[in-house]
Amino acid sequence: MITENGKTQRIEPRSGVAVELNEGDYLTIFDPEGMQVSDLVAVARHDAREIISNGRTFDYEETTRLTSGSRLWSNRSNPMLRIVEDTVGTHDFLLTPCSKATFEHFYPDQPVHRGCFGNLAEALAPYGVEPDAIPTAFNVFMNVPLKADGSLSVEPPVSKPGDFIRLRAEMDLVVGLTACSAYASNGGSFKPIDYRVDPAESDG
Amino acid sequence: MITENGKTQRIEPRSGVAVELNEGDYLTIFDPEGMQVSDLVAVARHDAREIISNGRTFDYEETTRLTSGSRLWSNRSNPMLRIVEDTVGTHDFLLTPCSKATFEHFYPDQPVHRGCFGNLAEALAPYGVEPDAIPTAFNVFMNVPLKADGSLSVEPPVSKPGDFIRLRAEMDLVVGLTACSAYASNGGSFKPIDYRVDPAESDG
Repeated sequence: MITENGKTQRIEPRSGVAVELNEGDYLTIFDPEGMQVSDLVAVARHDAREIISNGRTFDYEETTRLTSGSRLWSNRSNPMLRIVEDTVGTHDFLLTPCSKATFEHFYPDQPVHRGCFGNLAEALAPYGVEPDAIPTAFNVFMNVPLKADGSLSVEPPVSKPGDFIRLRAEMDLVVGLTACSAYASNGGSFKPIDYRVDPAESDG
Repeated sequence: MITENGKTQRIEPRSGVAVELNEGDYLTIFDPEGMQVSDLVAVARHDAREIISNGRTFDYEETTRLTSGSRLWSNRSNPMLRIVEDTVGTHDFLLTPCSKATFEHFYPDQPVHRGCFGNLAEALAPYGVEPDAIPTAFNVFMNVPLKADGSLSVEPPVSKPGDFIRLRAEMDLVVGLTACSAYASNGGSFKPIDYRVDPAESDG
């Protein structure tokens, strides 16, 4: 999908989109109502085999806590996105997008949903990304505290209405982006996510 | 490579192998000299698109600290390996295998090596695994303390000579396995790794 530049778009609850970015474009992701999560998967637009990698990002950034100044790296050791502004500072890059299988595992009494995984798979399929190739997403606003013993838990996001993260594309990209479908990730409710693309030539 | 069952094999320093396992087989990985790391990538033998996933493992195990009793999961939400015995208890599943690019980044004054990434790519190529598909490996014996602020560092392994981890194959697998090539991961020296396959019908 070619996104109209400079115009804020809405991702409806429990859905996803693909956003094309040119190198230098800015992508701003807003949490319009607060306490919502958006799973992000970046793919090189000219070769879908190059894809975002949590491991390479942890390698080069030497932290799991990614915020303003951090870069998100590809499996080929290239920077894909740089975080230029971040009003929240709490995101997750450890856990995979929710899927039919994770719904069955974590919410056995709830209706099964294809989740962010299914939404990302559909959004990125036209760009040649197979479902099996969808990696751990960068989970914007997701709150996954990690204890000293290594254990982790999914807590409600700390994002408030209007909070946002702004990223600069470091190469031509397609970005899969969702409004999260899981119960625990967003405090038990399903809300939209907004985003805006500002082209390279603007001030961002 | 079909490994001779019940016989300890050696992985020479800075190299890698592929090991075929049937469901129920036990794979034991030994650190013969101590303070060495072995990167492990598991692939479903009948469909190479199903591959080990750190994110799915963190999802289902709800911890980053994987040891006896933990399972290692695939991108399709299936258990691939179960850790049945572990004399060390410190492994890493956050960082990617060292590669030409990571050598250039972290050791600019040292000769470049293809690293565990290149060794895994060569070992797994006959099974249909493309280099771009190699994910974050389960880094056996690798010591990557994570601080409360999210920052991480690569420290020498705590493994002593003869320490080992034993895993049970939960499906038919090919496992890529290395003796680590990076300086920081193994305390600055390159050492071998030993392994042994015990078939399903034995006591393991």
